[in-house]
This record gives sequence, structure tokens and C-alpha cells, in this order.
Amino acid sequence: MKSFASLVLAAAAVTLSVPASAQFAKPEDAIKYRQSALTVMATHFGRVGAMANGRVPFDAKALADNANIAEEMSKLPWAAFVDGSDKGTTRAKAEIWSDNAKFKAAAEKMQAEIVKLNAAAKAGNLDALKVAFGPAAASCKACHDNFRKD
Amino acid sequence: MKSFASLVLAAAAVTLSVPASAQFAKPEDAIKYRQSALTVMATHFGRVGAMANGRVPFDAKALADNANIAEEMSKLPWAAFVDGSDKGTTRAKAEIWSDNAKFKAAAEKMQAEIVKLNAAAKAGNLDALKVAFGPAAASCKACHDNFRKD
Repeated sequence: MKSFASLVLAAAAVTLSVPASAQFAKPEDAIKYRQSALTVMATHFGRVGAMANGRVPFDAKALADNANIAEEMSKLPWAAFVDGSDKGTTRAKAEIWSDNAKFKAAAEKMQAEIVKLNAAAKAGNLDALKVAFGPAAASCKACHDNFRKD
Repeated sequence: MKSFASLVLAAAAVTLSVPASAQFAKPEDAIKYRQSALTVMATHFGRVGAMANGRVPFDAKALADNANIAEEMSKLPWAAFVDGSDKGTTRAKAEIWSDNAKFKAAAEKMQAEIVKLNAAAKAGNLDALKVAFGPAAASCKACHDNFRKD
């Protein structure tokens, strides 16, 4: 039979592995991480956009690679908006925490749009890509307008 | 029959899509991108290490997720060491460009070690993970020692 102490320790271990804040030693680490993930995402998203808008020649492999990285990166920043990371070198608005349901919905909307964009990119379908790019870009902008300081 | 002009344009388009430097509008964009990619990689690599070293409880899904992101990120920084990006907010040493073959070999060594680490993580094999983590961490350090200013 397990001792009460070992059960408490096991419960503590489970708890430790759950909250996102436990993943970052300091709030500034979380800030740097989410900014980095968004920078990488924006870089690859921008390359997809350049192809969608005809600013660079169509290249199926480059398109698929860039869209895939953008989708993978789109999943990462959100766990880093931890409590206490509203201060410091960040343009995050207080509304991220005070109106968190709206923020989460905006983040999920963006991820859903990027999934559609990536599907068009994987298919190498430039027309579908052009259709998907606008809403994806708008979902970035909507979140910035509402949740990022100028 | 295609005109000579269209062939030249097609050749130029192919060339445009190849060099990594063409992917970044400014050297500082390349610097910010590679630092961001390395920050995201280091964050997830660190979480794998915490599990390999027993500092956090074993969690097969978290391990697989973190190792997979680390591997994906390990592919990204290298294209951003473009000409002209040795100046600015960077600790990149001149040797990256003057001894580029050695730098590339170090980058490839790291990626190969991360592939092994990810394989152990995917298998959920903690013993194999412990074996793979040391060489992977050493490959990070070797590159920093040789190619990053203090």
C-alpha cells in the first residue's frame, strides 16, 4: 500500500507537469519564448503571403515547407501567456488576462485559418491559397488590434 | 516556342528562390529570426533535458511533443546566417563565415544528435533518452564554444 506521503508527492508531480507557467522559470523567459515563436511564425507566414500575392514565383516545395512551419509555430505562443508575464519587455495588453476567453478564441481562430492555409499550400493550389491567405492575415491583425499595444 | 526573354526571366526566378539571403529583407531580420528559432529550440530541448535528468516527472506525451518541436526547430536557424548578418545585435563570430565548412559540419552534427534524441523520445525510452541527451547537449555547446562570442 502506498503511503500518504507518496500519494501526495505523486499528486504534486502530476500538478507540476500540468500548468503552463511551470514550464518557464521566469516570466521574462515566457515573454522571450512567445515573441520568438511569433517571429518564426511571421517569417514563414510572410513567405507564404509573398507567394499568394505573386511577389515571389510559385515554388510548390518552398510553399509547402513555409506553410507547414507556420502551422507548427502557430500552436506554440499561447502556453507562454502565463500569469505575471504582462510586465516587462512586452506589448501584451492586460486584456489577454482580463478577457482571456476572447483572447483564446482569437488565438484559436488564427490557428484554424492557418490550418486551412496549410491545406491549400500542401495541395499546391494557388487559387485556394489566395482565398485562404486573406482570412489568415486578418486573424493575425484582429488579435494584434485587440491584444497588442502599439 | 518560348522567347529568350521569358527563358531569362524563368532562370532569374529560379535563382531568386534559391539563395537564403533573398529570404530576409534585411540582415537584422535574419539575425532576429535565427535567434528566435534557437530560443524556441532551446526551450523545448531544455524540457527534454529536464526529463532526461529526472528534474521533472516522466511524461511520455510531453516528452514526445517537446523533442519533436526541438527537432523541427533545429533545421531552421542555419539559412539565416546570411552574408552581412555578422554585424548588429548578434554574438555570431566571424568564423561562421570564414570557416563556414566547419560551422556547417557543427550545425549538421547537432541536427543529427537531435534526430537520435527525438527517436528515443518518440519511443518513450528513458534509458535511450539519457544516452542521447549528453551528446546532443555537447553538440550545442561545441558550436557555442567555437562560433558564439561570450
